[in-house]
Amino acid sequence: MAEEAKEIPERPKEGEAAAPKDGEEKGPSKKALKKLEKEREKAEKKRLQTEKDAAAKAAADANDVSKGDYGDSPIIGSAEYTAPGLKRVDFSTLGELEDGNEVAVRCVVRNARSQSAKLAFLELREGFHTIQAVIAASETLSRQMVKFVASINPESVVDVIGLVKEPKEPVKSATISNREIHILKIWVVAKAEPQLPIQIDDAERPLPAEGSEEGASGDDGRPLVGLNTRLDNRVLDLRSMLNHAIMGIKGGVSRLFEEFMWEHGFQQIWSPKILGAATEGGSNVFELKYFNTSAYLAQSPQFYKQMLIAARYKRVFEVGPVFRAENSNTARHLTEFVGLDLEMEFNEHYHEVLDFLEDMVLHIFNGLRTRYKKETDLVRSVYKVPEFQLPESGKVPRIPFSEGIKMLREAGEELSDYDDLTTPQEKLLGKLVLEKYHTDFYTLDQFPLSIRPFYTMPSGINPQNSNSYDLFMRGQEIMSGAQRVHDYELLCKRMRSFEPPLDPESPGFRSYTSAFKYGCPPHAGGGFGLERIVMLWLGLPNVRLASLFPRDPSRIMP
Amino acid sequence: MAEEAKEIPERPKEGEAAAPKDGEEKGPSKKALKKLEKEREKAEKKRLQTEKDAAAKAAADANDVSKGDYGDSPIIGSAEYTAPGLKRVDFSTLGELEDGNEVAVRCVVRNARSQSAKLAFLELREGFHTIQAVIAASETLSRQMVKFVASINPESVVDVIGLVKEPKEPVKSATISNREIHILKIWVVAKAEPQLPIQIDDAERPLPAEGSEEGASGDDGRPLVGLNTRLDNRVLDLRSMLNHAIMGIKGGVSRLFEEFMWEHGFQQIWSPKILGAATEGGSNVFELKYFNTSAYLAQSPQFYKQMLIAARYKRVFEVGPVFRAENSNTARHLTEFVGLDLEMEFNEHYHEVLDFLEDMVLHIFNGLRTRYKKETDLVRSVYKVPEFQLPESGKVPRIPFSEGIKMLREAGEELSDYDDLTTPQEKLLGKLVLEKYHTDFYTLDQFPLSIRPFYTMPSGINPQNSNSYDLFMRGQEIMSGAQRVHDYELLCKRMRSFEPPLDPESPGFRSYTSAFKYGCPPHAGGGFGLERIVMLWLGLPNVRLASLFPRDPSRIMP
Repeated sequence: MAEEAKEIPERPKEGEAAAPKDGEEKGPSKKALKKLEKEREKAEKKRLQTEKDAAAKAAADANDVSKGDYGDSPIIGSAEYTAPGLKRVDFSTLGELEDGNEVAVRCVVRNARSQSAKLAFLELREGFHTIQAVIAASETLSRQMVKFVASINPESVVDVIGLVKEPKEPVKSATISNREIHILKIWVVAKAEPQLPIQIDDAERPLPAEGSEEGASGDDGRPLVGLNTRLDNRVLDLRSMLNHAIMGIKGGVSRLFEEFMWEHGFQQIWSPKILGAATEGGSNVFELKYFNTSAYLAQSPQFYKQMLIAARYKRVFEVGPVFRAENSNTARHLTEFVGLDLEMEFNEHYHEVLDFLEDMVLHIFNGLRTRYKKETDLVRSVYKVPEFQLPESGKVPRIPFSEGIKMLREAGEELSDYDDLTTPQEKLLGKLVLEKYHTDFYTLDQFPLSIRPFYTMPSGINPQNSNSYDLFMRGQEIMSGAQRVHDYELLCKRMRSFEPPLDPESPGFRSYTSAFKYGCPPHAGGGFGLERIVMLWLGLPNVRLASLFPRDPSRIMP
Repeated sequence: MAEEAKEIPERPKEGEAAAPKDGEEKGPSKKALKKLEKEREKAEKKRLQTEKDAAAKAAADANDVSKGDYGDSPIIGSAEYTAPGLKRVDFSTLGELEDGNEVAVRCVVRNARSQSAKLAFLELREGFHTIQAVIAASETLSRQMVKFVASINPESVVDVIGLVKEPKEPVKSATISNREIHILKIWVVAKAEPQLPIQIDDAERPLPAEGSEEGASGDDGRPLVGLNTRLDNRVLDLRSMLNHAIMGIKGGVSRLFEEFMWEHGFQQIWSPKILGAATEGGSNVFELKYFNTSAYLAQSPQFYKQMLIAARYKRVFEVGPVFRAENSNTARHLTEFVGLDLEMEFNEHYHEVLDFLEDMVLHIFNGLRTRYKKETDLVRSVYKVPEFQLPESGKVPRIPFSEGIKMLREAGEELSDYDDLTTPQEKLLGKLVLEKYHTDFYTLDQFPLSIRPFYTMPSGINPQNSNSYDLFMRGQEIMSGAQRVHDYELLCKRMRSFEPPLDPESPGFRSYTSAFKYGCPPHAGGGFGLERIVMLWLGLPNVRLASLFPRDPSRIMP
């Protein structure tokens, strides 16, 4: 009878049943007829199946010594604590438990296979750990239970009670290779459908190389799943340990940043994301309907950070979303990303702030090296990118922009003194700096004034330059910052000198510019893109991999 | 000559000069003529003034012993470190310095006054501290310098070098009353305009009582500045110590929350704010233009938190903006606020999560009591609200919703078993709970299923109830949460049972609902409004006071 069950057709995928398979078929009456017939068949099948199931269950129950020790758990609706004394353990502790210990675990079935009617194996996962579980039919464990175990769909969540045992030989396929679990009881807490749209194992592997097709092969000759397929099925994709490691590191960067801010007396702020005016460059801003008027999404907390300096908050930082309506479909642009922003007073020279910023980034990198080594190593085992180089001396090379230009010219690039660098030039400079200074992290200082925003302070030394800087990782910018103009008259002058001129007294600018009328001290700051830091620390091929649910001009789902 | 300088007219306010004062005047030719005449006069005045200034300066310089020790500093453009050895100190250390110590400080002039031609006083502020500074003309300090000091506009930023001295009697008006600074040198680093749109002293005082007019008097009979005037001039308003204290507490709540999350193994997440579909209640959502299509602003991270649970992140939290397009013009609604959200797996009963949530909030309150006492006391000295009561036993009353209904009925309210509570009823219940349990913080549990969202898990005990809860402070909800439906079939059933029915397979819902097809464990969570916690902890009369730049249906500026 149980064999017969195999002939039951697989549950159709959602939405599939309603779609006609024969595209050639015409005429509604024929279709309707067929539909009715199908429905009748379906109802009859269901009735038979219910009868069969009940009969099978009764027969099985009658001679099942393991009855009550396994099965599908009802949906946990919190009517009561079903096992009040039961303490479940994390997998992280299993490797150290003594042989013979009884444990309860809640975990995920990665894989189930039966070796025979009497023996089945599970690969179980919890967090970054996997362990093998085994069940062998015996006087106390029924064949029905072994069969049930072997039939559990991968990705189902289970409760297991079992004995921790030392295996005869190490289980190489599991991260906990020196132990296995001998199953005593098992319930499926949340059942997965049998067919997964993508395999979690595929999500553990790298993206196809840039420019290659979906399904191109990896080093091992097996096909690789492309970015879009992964992002379309992002919840399953995110289950991979690879993605858990990336997101762990992302959380780590933010945590290290915040801890450093708090230690140094910064006030956390939340500036508004809905703005009444599109001030910082109107073309790259998202517009929204706001009751009976229009509003805009903030492209950065720039103006508000400065207004808070003017409001006597000496040091402020913000962690929050940043929105850019740039139609850039590159591997390093997102339309929504997480900004790590800060702004601070200084006394005499903006290099006080730049010193602080470099120290802060080094603090983050050192924290990643020590506190997030496991995650970093895991990602590096998949994306085989050279380890991120930090300056051995602990001193970050601070290269004047003009010196950068010189280095590029010596390497054969043609460019003028006050040109902005192209992306390939930036990357080339990254290589040159790595060769010369043996570091992937460095600063460019004193950018030409003409290529920076109006609120940037002109240089006190060369008025064609500005007191501005970019921080780079592997030849890509991760932070842009500067001393800002803190004097109202100078700010107005700078705004009016722009082409086209900006009006400091226009409604959009007034609340910003007026902040500098009433005594605002000298200040500087900058803003980091969190996803970029993660991408460049790990050497990921695409910034989307560092975003849970990336947004770009062609993707706003899931 | 110096006397003559008094006759120079005050610098006109920006924009004022261009506005004709005589509204009766007609005809463009007359206007144009007058304008030309005015301009000519202005130019002549300026020329004379420049000459006068130069002459005055030369004469003054000739016999000024303090020449070079005071004045307006040029704009700090970071050409060089002007005083490389100079170490400025924070005001927090001044009270402990010995009599006669020389210090350098950068600070704000709150007030300048001259007692005579030979004696002037400044009230200086840095952070939460104020101190008196004094200058008396002597052989080494010129009268010109005394005059300059007395003329410094309030809110200007200054560098002061001086001697710390014990005053003859304590300076009651300053927070540091046991010391004063005897000025040796002083430069104005950033000059404030002479007229401030609002006085910082006024921003230190409470709002007028609810319902009273702008300008209504406070307890001391002096007029109070209303909310709109404050918000229109928010940068100056935010300078008050009152607002520094409120924002310090806001940062504190978030920090205490995050620290607790990290300690308990939560993964920080950033869910997208730009969504492809308006799913959670279409009417309260902001719509935006997204390249060639439409998108929506996230009303909560609800769906994404749950999708991440389904992606095997066992415990997740987010701190980020939440957008609500509700046209509610009340003292407790904002259209943009900061959400503290979390979601976590549990084993058997959602009360595991509720226990955790209550502990977390108590951790925040206890942290506020110890680490943010100074700020809390400062706000309480302005808004004289009773101190927030916490349960003495440390156990948070967890009141079944049905019990809450009963308490309200006993207090004379008429309502049915499954009615939602009105805001006044919630507040009344807060009072009843305070009387009975002596706490301003408590939980309502097991809300009627009909008044909760579709993703709420029905109660395992009474199917008309749900495994949902609200946390309250002073009779106002600060968090709403629940066990969620983690089973795909049940979720679809719940959605289809709604009026109008929701389609689980619609493009907007599919990426959410499909997350539950592949083994999602039982989980629960909740979301706090950060500004509400701050408002209710302090007993502020309006939630806008807890937002740097509040957003409501009629305000998106500054």
